[in-house]
Amino acid sequence: MNQLHIIKIGGNIIDDEAKLDTFLDHFAQLKGNKILIHGGGKLATSLAKELGVEQQLIDGRRITDSETLKITAMVYAGLVNKTIVAKLQAKSCNAIGLSGVDGNSIKSTKRVHPTINYGWVGDVETINVNFFQDIIDKRIVSVISPITHDGKGNLLNTNADTIATEIAIALSNQNNVKLRFCFEKLGVLLDPEDDSSWISQLDLNQYETLKTKEIISKGMLPKLENAFRAVNSKVTKVEICHADYANKQGEDFIGTQII
Amino acid sequence: MNQLHIIKIGGNIIDDEAKLDTFLDHFAQLKGNKILIHGGGKLATSLAKELGVEQQLIDGRRITDSETLKITAMVYAGLVNKTIVAKLQAKSCNAIGLSGVDGNSIKSTKRVHPTINYGWVGDVETINVNFFQDIIDKRIVSVISPITHDGKGNLLNTNADTIATEIAIALSNQNNVKLRFCFEKLGVLLDPEDDSSWISQLDLNQYETLKTKEIISKGMLPKLENAFRAVNSKVTKVEICHADYANKQGEDFIGTQII
Repeated sequence: MNQLHIIKIGGNIIDDEAKLDTFLDHFAQLKGNKILIHGGGKLATSLAKELGVEQQLIDGRRITDSETLKITAMVYAGLVNKTIVAKLQAKSCNAIGLSGVDGNSIKSTKRVHPTINYGWVGDVETINVNFFQDIIDKRIVSVISPITHDGKGNLLNTNADTIATEIAIALSNQNNVKLRFCFEKLGVLLDPEDDSSWISQLDLNQYETLKTKEIISKGMLPKLENAFRAVNSKVTKVEICHADYANKQGEDFIGTQII
Repeated sequence: MNQLHIIKIGGNIIDDEAKLDTFLDHFAQLKGNKILIHGGGKLATSLAKELGVEQQLIDGRRITDSETLKITAMVYAGLVNKTIVAKLQAKSCNAIGLSGVDGNSIKSTKRVHPTINYGWVGDVETINVNFFQDIIDKRIVSVISPITHDGKGNLLNTNADTIATEIAIALSNQNNVKLRFCFEKLGVLLDPEDDSSWISQLDLNQYETLKTKEIISKGMLPKLENAFRAVNSKVTKVEICHADYANKQGEDFIGTQII
């Protein structure tokens, strides 16, 4: 099976043009088949503020009312997605920007929760494997924004870590998938205040301990839940690392491997 | 050769959700291979106003400064494009939303003009025929937003009528292309104030006369220049009609055929 790199890039990198450019340089240099999933970043939040649309977050997940959904569709599927693709094209990396509606590639269901109304938030239901595999076979890089759809005409805001995980799992039948969650830290930190406290490996027992001690919290929780789900499925390798190490392999790599 | 319907839908239809839904019903019912190109509508203008970004138009073409470019990328490539695709998916019409950056499908060059600085406005340079033909062969409908790129990492705002025309011409080598510009009028009008004054045919001589008399003016000029360019190339049929007639054929059709 061919190797397939699936990289999720976090919002903090997207928010900073210089960091994004550096990351995209690294990503473009990465050899072989690859897919990029991008988060949202603060752009949506700042646009909402400018437009007077109030924002709510619960457990690191955005509550998506109708106006916020429009903003996320504009920022994630529009500006961020097309900016990334334009930059990759300039680096001779042929890419296609996609949201879950496109080619019915990621269908999700509107989240139903007993007490919290998340609004237009979607949980991934199906990944259109043939659609993505066909793009891979053409040596085109899919750049995926975290906007999916319910098949009833509604767009849904979806967690980008989850999308990366679901795509990685779905494509593992036909590819040797390496999944990397890249962000602004060197890996999973034992002290959230100390960037040098990253660990090279993390297993489920250690994760549960760190979670209980609240050393791992907030946005890292859904990321790591996803990472463990991927590693417990057919995904070959799952790593969490700094965006600068997105394309590093073997001894050059710094980051946390999920085992 | 297979028939290919290429339909450009104007901004006035996109601005009105009920009209857009009706149009998309008609479009989804249209049998055979098809491509949809959408304009921008007033959404970008109203968003710019809300954000305090001043807008300038020269000859019906938007002057696109950096902030305006971001707004058009958000609105056209993001919100409008993905909303249309989600609605088509709900009507069992498998579609993919694309901008010119995606798959390097539409490359353009930043407009250089001796006296007017149009800003980030692009004139179409190349259409990636293989890319679009491949999507057609998969029976997927391309839904194209008027955002292109220059290959140097920049997005460019591009006239949607021109994109429709260039795609129609480029795909005419492999397809029997019918190009329709759909908007809120019944066709080319002899009296701009009288909706019933539409004419069933328009040739170049008549066009030049109507232009001189200023009966045809403003936004209709680039549309008709494009329409005549298409009909003088290999495009089989070029028509201008109301969005309600987008899928009507033969005797059921009302509109202006460009001859």
